[in-house]
Amino acid sequence: MAAIERAADQEENVQGSGAISTIVIIIAMQTEALPLVNTFQLTEDPDSPFPKGVPWVRYHGTYKGLEINIIWPGKDSLLGVDSVGTISASLVTYSSIQALRPDLIINAGTAGGFKAKGASIADVYLASEVAFHDRRIPIPVFDQYGVGARKTFSTPNLVREINLKIGKLSTGDSLDMSPHDEASIMANEAVIKDMEGAAVAYVASLFSIPTIFLKAVTDIIDGDKPTAEEFLENLAAVTAALDQAVSQVVDFLPGRSLSEL
Amino acid sequence: MAAIERAADQEENVQGSGAISTIVIIIAMQTEALPLVNTFQLTEDPDSPFPKGVPWVRYHGTYKGLEINIIWPGKDSLLGVDSVGTISASLVTYSSIQALRPDLIINAGTAGGFKAKGASIADVYLASEVAFHDRRIPIPVFDQYGVGARKTFSTPNLVREINLKIGKLSTGDSLDMSPHDEASIMANEAVIKDMEGAAVAYVASLFSIPTIFLKAVTDIIDGDKPTAEEFLENLAAVTAALDQAVSQVVDFLPGRSLSEL
Repeated sequence: MAAIERAADQEENVQGSGAISTIVIIIAMQTEALPLVNTFQLTEDPDSPFPKGVPWVRYHGTYKGLEINIIWPGKDSLLGVDSVGTISASLVTYSSIQALRPDLIINAGTAGGFKAKGASIADVYLASEVAFHDRRIPIPVFDQYGVGARKTFSTPNLVREINLKIGKLSTGDSLDMSPHDEASIMANEAVIKDMEGAAVAYVASLFSIPTIFLKAVTDIIDGDKPTAEEFLENLAAVTAALDQAVSQVVDFLPGRSLSEL
Repeated sequence: MAAIERAADQEENVQGSGAISTIVIIIAMQTEALPLVNTFQLTEDPDSPFPKGVPWVRYHGTYKGLEINIIWPGKDSLLGVDSVGTISASLVTYSSIQALRPDLIINAGTAGGFKAKGASIADVYLASEVAFHDRRIPIPVFDQYGVGARKTFSTPNLVREINLKIGKLSTGDSLDMSPHDEASIMANEAVIKDMEGAAVAYVASLFSIPTIFLKAVTDIIDGDKPTAEEFLENLAAVTAALDQAVSQVVDFLPGRSLSEL
């Protein structure tokens, strides 16, 4: 009920005229989430806004006047690994929007990058567009639905303020890249590849919640090292770069409206 | 609130001792859903249990004493095609469980079948297990999470009563089949391939809701015809076989508890 009342109070913010007050940051892996939980001095919600049964975790608190919620899909209850991928990302995005009515969503995480398109390890990208590369439905119009290409929320002032690379993001549920995936990623003109972004964008678009994507490069897809090995090697170090970029973006928000980003 | 009260009333049903009273039937395509809406004489809910913004449609009514809800994810609001695939299936499963607290979920739809494993056009399968074939994560334990293999709810008496084929189902977001997908489908020992089943199973498992899968074969994957063409050719006719199978299953439910299925 509190969330619903707050949503009504903030209706003008959703229109872009009031100052941003509530943000949801969706992060798929605990290793990526915890440094930011510390940075913003958030605490784990003992009274979860999510239903019994789901492993999703909300860290929240007030930081520079903003209500910040980091939502991590949690560990799979059977297997104990982070609930990565598009299904969990979709579910937590949906449930967070319903429970918390954010003014802005940030999807932060790691990604693979193509060196042929300029990506290097530890680069942080702001995605200009997102699309799927593993939803091939060769029937007219269904094909476009499958690709699900979407422009992200435009933040020209934020881009000027912070030194982030800009590029297109392609999303799929595999860490590796099959030849079919590669062809779709090329068709999507993607510089970076992740496992959640386009799913978060799809759900946020249903409710017209502005969403931005910050992705730090943990592995070079068109390089020599096996993806899984390179990903695990770089995860901790690259998370520091991601942490810094998310902090810079969040520091830019207080007192600003959506239309000022 | 009504749903929550009803959920409390039905707690014993969830344990398998009381008679089944509320079922949710999740169907991805309108062409597949509408014949069943007619069979059970359901009506579209004017007061949707789902939030504003989503295209999801609930058809409901009482049939032989059962509360029946057919949930169709609706047409994509931008492109006008059915919202097929794992993301929409996950979201409607989640939201239907929260709003309607079903005793049993039935995921009904069409599938591709392998003739080498005995499948023919218009066969209706009850899935014995489900798994994903397009979530390859080659890191220990994450690999199992990606595959997401799950046994389905066991219904030995239903199987004896109704003449359905039994086989394993593999799920992915593409209508076609890449060589990588094929290898995973073979590893999953699947007889049939769809675009929603394992996602519905994943979400239902979070809340321990018993779920069964009825899939009618519209195309032979290891045959001569292109999948998309064969799928569209057979969709209407095969839907009649699916309609009959779902009706037989639903007719078996009244007065029975989950443990009697």
